[in-house]
Amino acid sequence: MRIYDIIDKKRNGFELTDAELEFFVSGYVEGTVKDYQASALLMAICINGMTDAEIMRMTLLMAESGDMLDLSCFGDLSVDKHSTGGVGDKTTLIISPIVAELGLTVAKLSGRGLGHTGGTIDKLESIPNFRIELPFDEFINISKNCGVCVCSAGKELVPADKKLYALRDVTATVSSIPLIVSSIMSKKLAGGAKSIVLDVKTGSGAFMKTNEESEELARRMVSIAKRAGRNVSAVITNMDRPLGRAIGNSLEVMEAVSLLRGEESDNDLKEVCITLASELVSLGKGITYEESRKLVLKVLNDKSAYNRFLKWIEMQSGDISVFNEGSDFGKADFVSEVIAKESGYISSVNASGLGICAMHLGAGRASKEDIIDYSAGAILLKKVGDYVEKGEVIARLQSSTVSDHKKIAEQWLDNITFSKTKPESQPIIYKIIR
Amino acid sequence: MRIYDIIDKKRNGFELTDAELEFFVSGYVEGTVKDYQASALLMAICINGMTDAEIMRMTLLMAESGDMLDLSCFGDLSVDKHSTGGVGDKTTLIISPIVAELGLTVAKLSGRGLGHTGGTIDKLESIPNFRIELPFDEFINISKNCGVCVCSAGKELVPADKKLYALRDVTATVSSIPLIVSSIMSKKLAGGAKSIVLDVKTGSGAFMKTNEESEELARRMVSIAKRAGRNVSAVITNMDRPLGRAIGNSLEVMEAVSLLRGEESDNDLKEVCITLASELVSLGKGITYEESRKLVLKVLNDKSAYNRFLKWIEMQSGDISVFNEGSDFGKADFVSEVIAKESGYISSVNASGLGICAMHLGAGRASKEDIIDYSAGAILLKKVGDYVEKGEVIARLQSSTVSDHKKIAEQWLDNITFSKTKPESQPIIYKIIR
Repeated sequence: MRIYDIIDKKRNGFELTDAELEFFVSGYVEGTVKDYQASALLMAICINGMTDAEIMRMTLLMAESGDMLDLSCFGDLSVDKHSTGGVGDKTTLIISPIVAELGLTVAKLSGRGLGHTGGTIDKLESIPNFRIELPFDEFINISKNCGVCVCSAGKELVPADKKLYALRDVTATVSSIPLIVSSIMSKKLAGGAKSIVLDVKTGSGAFMKTNEESEELARRMVSIAKRAGRNVSAVITNMDRPLGRAIGNSLEVMEAVSLLRGEESDNDLKEVCITLASELVSLGKGITYEESRKLVLKVLNDKSAYNRFLKWIEMQSGDISVFNEGSDFGKADFVSEVIAKESGYISSVNASGLGICAMHLGAGRASKEDIIDYSAGAILLKKVGDYVEKGEVIARLQSSTVSDHKKIAEQWLDNITFSKTKPESQPIIYKIIR
Repeated sequence: MRIYDIIDKKRNGFELTDAELEFFVSGYVEGTVKDYQASALLMAICINGMTDAEIMRMTLLMAESGDMLDLSCFGDLSVDKHSTGGVGDKTTLIISPIVAELGLTVAKLSGRGLGHTGGTIDKLESIPNFRIELPFDEFINISKNCGVCVCSAGKELVPADKKLYALRDVTATVSSIPLIVSSIMSKKLAGGAKSIVLDVKTGSGAFMKTNEESEELARRMVSIAKRAGRNVSAVITNMDRPLGRAIGNSLEVMEAVSLLRGEESDNDLKEVCITLASELVSLGKGITYEESRKLVLKVLNDKSAYNRFLKWIEMQSGDISVFNEGSDFGKADFVSEVIAKESGYISSVNASGLGICAMHLGAGRASKEDIIDYSAGAILLKKVGDYVEKGEVIARLQSSTVSDHKKIAEQWLDNITFSKTKPESQPIIYKIIR
C-alpha cells in the first residue's frame, strides 16, 4: 500500500477502505506519512467529502491512536458534555455540579481556548490554586467522591487528532464536517463516558455559521456515537450572540457562580444550561427529558448544585474564598466603558468579533504560546434586542495587562449593529437531535 | 496577505488574483510557504481547477522564478520542440538536425527520464564522450555554428517548477491540466525559443489517456504560448503503442541514426518526425505546412540532415565512430527473446507497461538516483496489427547489468493482447492545433 495511491483515490472522489484509512492515520502518527502528504489528503477530503462509514472508521482509528480513558468503575453513570466552541460559553462549570448532584459522574478531560473561543481549563485555572493536572488515580477518586473532576487533556489522549489538528490549522482544512466529526468524536470516545451531550453552536460566534451545517454536523456526530455504543444527543444552540453576559475567564467563573447561587442571571445562559443538564440526566438515568428537567430545576433552586460546585473546586485545591463578597476575584486594574454613539435597538452583534476584542484585552490567545490575563474580559450590559440611548454604557471592558482600551472599544462598537425598530427575537435553543 | 487565506479561497473554488499567485509561488521558492501548505493548495487546484488567466499568471511567475535563456542573437529563428513524454520517443534526435539544416536554430535545454518515459539527455549521454553540460557561451557558439545544441537543464532554470514538481510527485497532484500546463510552459518560455511545437502524446503510454484530455491540454498550452508572444502549434500523437521499434537509450540513438541515413524505418516514427519538423519549419520560417514538409523530405532524402546530425554530435564531443558498421554501440552482454505463446494478431499493447519492462532491464529509472544501463532495452519485432505464429519471436530484450530476463519477458507478454481478427488500424497523428 502506498499513501500516494490513497491520496489519488480520495482526490478522484472514491471511498477509502478501512485498511487505507488505517495506513494513513497510523502512518501519520508514526511519521512515515509526511505532513505534505497528509495535508494533500485532508484537502481532498475537505472538497470531496467522506461517507458515514469512512468517518466512523477514521474516528475509531484516531480514538485508538493513544490512551482510552477507562471509566468502567462508574458503570453507566459517566456522562460528558462537549461544545463545538463559542464566545462566553461557561456551561461546563454550571452543568457539571448539577448532574453530579443528581448522581451522575462527570470525569472529564477538557481543553484550552484558542482565538475567539474560550476553554474550560483556562476558566478553571483562573481560580487561585486550582489544579488542572492530576494523577489518574486522584482524578478517579475525586470523580468518585464528588461526582465531578475536570482535568487538562494530556498528550496521550488522541495523539492523531493533536497532530492532524495542528496541520489543519495551517492548511485551511479546519472547516470540513467529516474532519470536525472525527476530531470531536475521537476525543469523546477516548474520553470514556457512557452518555454524551453535544452542544452544537450555530451563528456568527461559531464555526458553523448556518443551521443546515450545524444540523448536518450534529446528525453525523450522533450517528457515530450511537454506532460506538454510547447514549447521545445533540442540542443545536444559538451563537449569533455571546452566551450570557460575561466574556473572559474569572468573569465567566463569577457569572457561573452567580447563576448557581440563584442570583439574577441571563436567561439565555440559564436555558442552555438547564437544557444540556436535562439531556445529560435523561441519557444517564434513562428517564424522560421532562422528568430530568424537574430534577435539574430542583437542585438549582435549592442551591445543592452550588454546594456541589464549591465541593468540586475545593477537591481540586481551588480557593473558594474568592467567591465571597468583597473578594478581588473577577476584578481588574484597568476598567473602561463602551459608549453607544447612536440611539436605537441593538439589532445584531458579531459574536466572534466580540470574542476577538476580549482576546485583545488578554482574555484569550491569538497563538498557542500567548499568556492569558485571567482578569481580562468584558461584561455585556446591553444585549441584542435592548434599546440604547446615545451616550449610554453598553459594555464594560477590563484587563490587568493592557492599559489602553480605546481601540478595542472602537472595535467592539464595529461589531454591533443598531436599528430603529426592535429586532425579532431569536430562540436560544434551535433543535435537539437524539 | 496570508497563505492560509489563499488556500481557503481556492478550496472554495474562487479565482486567485495575480498578487495571491505571486505570494504563493515566490513564497514557496523562498521557503516561507511550507511544503504542507503548498500541497494543500495544489490539491485544491487539482480538484477545483484554474481559469486561463490564473494559468497564464502562474506560468509566467514560474518562468521568471529563475534564469530566462536569452536567445535573441538568433532573431526569430530559434525553435523548440516539447513532448509530454512517452515510450520510445527519440524524435528530438531526428528533428533537430532536420530543422537546423533548414536554417533554424535548436538551442535547447532538455531533461532526463523517469519511470516508463525516457529523456533526451539520457539518450545523448549514451553516446561515448558526449558532453551534456556546457558553459553558456559554448552552448550559444555550437548553436550558432551548427544550428543544434542540446544541453541538460540546470537548477537555475525554473526553480519553482523543480520544487513544485518534486512535491506533486509525492502528493498525487501530477495529473492536473492547469499544473501540467504551467509546468511545461514555464520551462518552454524560460527556454527562450521564438517558435514552439508541442507533441502531446495520448494513450496507454502517455500521461493523458484520452483524446479529450490531450486536446484540452494542447489548447491551453497553445493559448498560453500565444499570449506570451510565441509562435506555437501542438500535434496530438498516438501513444497507445511505443513510438518506433526501439526502447532504450543507445538502441533509440541507433534507430534515429538509421532513419536519418534513409534505411528502412518504422512508418509511425517517420511520420511523427516529419510532421513535427514541418510544423517547426512552418512556424520558424513563416511558410505553409505543405512547403515546409517538402523541404523536410528533401533534407531527409539527400542525407544532409544526417550529416548535420554527425556534425552536431561531434561538436558536443560525441564519438561518431560508434555509428560505423561493426561498432559495439547499441549491443549488450545479455540478449533474450520474447516468444509468442499463441497465434493471432497483436490487437493492442500497454505502452507504459512495455516502458516499465525496459526500465526493469536497466534502460530507465524507478527513482531519480538509479543508474542507467545505456545498452539496456528492447526491440519490437512485431507491432500492433501484425500477425504472429505461436513460438515466433515478437521482441528482443537486452541489457548489460540484469542477466536474467525471464520474469521481464513474462511481464512483456502480459502487456500484449492477441486477437483472432486484424485490429482496426489507428492513426499516428490525431490532430494539429495551431
